[in-house]
Amino acid sequence: MTTAASAAAAQAQTADNGGERVIRVALAERSYDIRIGRGLLDGLGGAVARLAPGANVAIITDENVNRVLGERARASLTQAGQRVETIVLPPGEATKSWDHVGQVCEALLAAKIERGDIVVALGGGVIGDLAGFAAAIVRRGVRFVQVPTSLLAQVDSSVGGKTGINSPHGKNLIGAFYQPSLVLADTAVLDTLPVRELRAGYAEVAKYGLIDQPEFFAWCEQNWQGVYDGTDAREYAVATSCAAKAAVVARDETETGDRALLNLGHTFGHALERLTHYDSARLVHGEGVAIGMAQAFRFSARLGLCAPADADRVARHLAAAGLPVHPAQIPGGVGTVDEVLEAMAQDKKVSRGALTFILARGIGQSFIAKNMPRDDVRAFLEADMAGGPGV
Amino acid sequence: MTTAASAAAAQAQTADNGGERVIRVALAERSYDIRIGRGLLDGLGGAVARLAPGANVAIITDENVNRVLGERARASLTQAGQRVETIVLPPGEATKSWDHVGQVCEALLAAKIERGDIVVALGGGVIGDLAGFAAAIVRRGVRFVQVPTSLLAQVDSSVGGKTGINSPHGKNLIGAFYQPSLVLADTAVLDTLPVRELRAGYAEVAKYGLIDQPEFFAWCEQNWQGVYDGTDAREYAVATSCAAKAAVVARDETETGDRALLNLGHTFGHALERLTHYDSARLVHGEGVAIGMAQAFRFSARLGLCAPADADRVARHLAAAGLPVHPAQIPGGVGTVDEVLEAMAQDKKVSRGALTFILARGIGQSFIAKNMPRDDVRAFLEADMAGGPGV
Ligand SMILES: NC(=O)c1ccc[n+]([C@@H]2O[C@H](COP(=O)([O-])OP(=O)(O)OC[C@H]3O[C@@H](n4cnc5c(N)ncnc54)[C@H](O)[C@@H]3O)[C@@H](O)[C@H]2O)c1
Ligand SMILES: NC(=O)c1ccc[n+]([C@@H]2O[C@H](COP(=O)([O-])OP(=O)(O)OC[C@H]3O[C@@H](n4cnc5c(N)ncnc54)[C@H](O)[C@@H]3O)[C@@H](O)[C@H]2O)c1
Ligand SMILES: [Zn+2]
Ligand SMILES: [Zn+2]
Repeated sequence: MTTAASAAAAQAQTADNGGERVIRVALAERSYDIRIGRGLLDGLGGAVARLAPGANVAIITDENVNRVLGERARASLTQAGQRVETIVLPPGEATKSWDHVGQVCEALLAAKIERGDIVVALGGGVIGDLAGFAAAIVRRGVRFVQVPTSLLAQVDSSVGGKTGINSPHGKNLIGAFYQPSLVLADTAVLDTLPVRELRAGYAEVAKYGLIDQPEFFAWCEQNWQGVYDGTDAREYAVATSCAAKAAVVARDETETGDRALLNLGHTFGHALERLTHYDSARLVHGEGVAIGMAQAFRFSARLGLCAPADADRVARHLAAAGLPVHPAQIPGGVGTVDEVLEAMAQDKKVSRGALTFILARGIGQSFIAKNMPRDDVRAFLEADMAGGPGV
Repeated sequence: MTTAASAAAAQAQTADNGGERVIRVALAERSYDIRIGRGLLDGLGGAVARLAPGANVAIITDENVNRVLGERARASLTQAGQRVETIVLPPGEATKSWDHVGQVCEALLAAKIERGDIVVALGGGVIGDLAGFAAAIVRRGVRFVQVPTSLLAQVDSSVGGKTGINSPHGKNLIGAFYQPSLVLADTAVLDTLPVRELRAGYAEVAKYGLIDQPEFFAWCEQNWQGVYDGTDAREYAVATSCAAKAAVVARDETETGDRALLNLGHTFGHALERLTHYDSARLVHGEGVAIGMAQAFRFSARLGLCAPADADRVARHLAAAGLPVHPAQIPGGVGTVDEVLEAMAQDKKVSRGALTFILARGIGQSFIAKNMPRDDVRAFLEADMAGGPGV
């Protein structure tokens, strides 16, 4: 691991407690800790007991995660004297639906979960988003703890309080800003994560470098393999990512301002996800983000905002880490330029019909570009989609 | 109208602008005005235009209210240059359901309502609770304006930001704390409200006196007929009620403390509603609250907390205003003491199985009584239900 200190990590008060890293998300009375380290899952019971002594606990998880981690989570909670119920859902993006959030809420009520009790989200971003939303609306809010088990969830979705489900009108269109009471990220649990999911999560890690930490992006270019393999580069990457996100969230909790920077790669990415009907066999979220970030840099280069060499460097690194960087790499393709434009227009981040993009003046120099002329976007897409990955 | 000034009304900065009363709900960046006066509905368009110039507006209403007020609301908005869509729901408590909130959210998305747009809740408490919840969760929060059209909604449900729906497990168990941007209470629209609904709303008016304003309760005893008839006693009653509620909400937005005082009459009342299966032909919310308040005072008298004469005075006034004060007055009855106890145990306000009541040391001297022994409650119910209204 290099010694390049990340500015954001320092700002967000990273503390190193004997191997465990702790990052504080500073949101006044809604502040909470993100704890990062190998083996933390076995401390879940103790951590929950400190938050809410004597509380009842409901674990919300999916079938895959329950199979590999459910027993350990339950054992830890039970040993700490908590009464535990587990609500197991089918894995996959389709679980973030009205039907499932209704079922989960009713199951929490049936389990007599009260406002002082604890909902544990044990899983990837799907479970975190769904469980967080259910916790937000059952009894107008019960406390919840995020135990993210995918890399994407550890570096992104478990931090910041965005929760929700998908609508037939689009992804994440129904939800709440609702902060957890604690995030417990056990980096060892990523060892059972399918490699494709690991890569998808890695796209969001690289994103923090691309937004405003060029030295972290350079670190990523050197150390990505260690993140995948589970050396201590993994904890460093997770902690740096969480610190970066925590700093943005603390500045702009409900995304009225520069929290939108976190959407680098997402305007394109979400459109691609929509066009592949959220079919994870074809595209998972992080892959869409990887393609989207590569596109955002190519778009920036085309607009003369950044050097073409920067766009190449972005695509090269993402491709080296096993990620797609061009729509043509999506099995089955994504249709025409018009279809991509139409899919972008449906994005939640569209305001009064104007398209907002995150563009860049270079690596680590991203900015929010509101009201991008539709013709510029079309011209870029026509040129870009006619080309290919080029890496 | 008497001149007895209400302490809470003064605290909450009631301003009198040429017949219109304005009460500020002080919640830092979530602060908003409650505007009260005859004919304000025709100013809806102007008010919304000042909040969000050029915004799109979606009116959520029910069939009854749409029939009597829909056109006027739309005309006012259209004249002010707003694009308006109307979502009309069936009237009645059953509308506060998962199915309907899902339909409303999807309809708002179909109408392309964005975060800066405005959802208008035009109706009673059912519409206000449902529309507020939908506004809270569509795109993680779009702005909304309450236009309460029932007395209950004007004095209670439109103020304070509790929104939500019912669950098969109980009333209001799913929801959010979400504050409106404005409450516009046109007291003239109450002229078309069925008298039974007017009475039900009046129970909540009297409640504010019983909680902590004995002089307002005395004013009610003198002036209730004017509230029903629509003299300026009506605006005074609505304004005093809103000021009282606003003051409590400002102290305790998310009900972790003394906001619970607003639940006077509601532990009993909600149990009665549950036992009558929310069948409004038998019992509407305010009737349940009236019975519940009479019971809370009889229970307090039985426990030696307040004078039996105070309990009599409460029942006498509510009965004079046309409200029921005893479970025996509910058509079809409510079953046994055990059934009432069981229904109370399901209340949201039950914490770890202990029953919380709002009891009183006299009129205007209510307090929160946590952990009431179940045996005391049972003994009271056995005595009380064996008796009758007694007024
Ligand atoms: N709330 C936010 O701020 C935010 C940010 C980014 C993404 N998201 C959301 O996150 C979701 C994607 O999250 P995700 O990529 O974690 O998807 P996911 O939750 O579907 O997890 C991916 C797959 O990995 C499996 N899995 C998870 N942990 C495992 C483990 N330790 N071992 C073995 N298998 C494991 C899951 O069962 C699933 O099949 C999307 O719905 C996206 O919208 C939310
Ligand atoms: N959010 C809160 O803080 C809060 C507080 C108290 C009650 N509530 C909720 O409020 C609901 C009860 O509200 P409600 O009593 O207003 O019921 P409601 O909304 O059902 O309205 C009562 C009836 O009057 C009709 N109506 C409304 N305005 C009218 C008008 N101007 N002219 C003619 N008809 C009209 C409605 O169509 C309905 O049939 C319950 O669901 C209760 O849980 C919420
Ligand atoms: Zn993402
Ligand atoms: Zn009430």
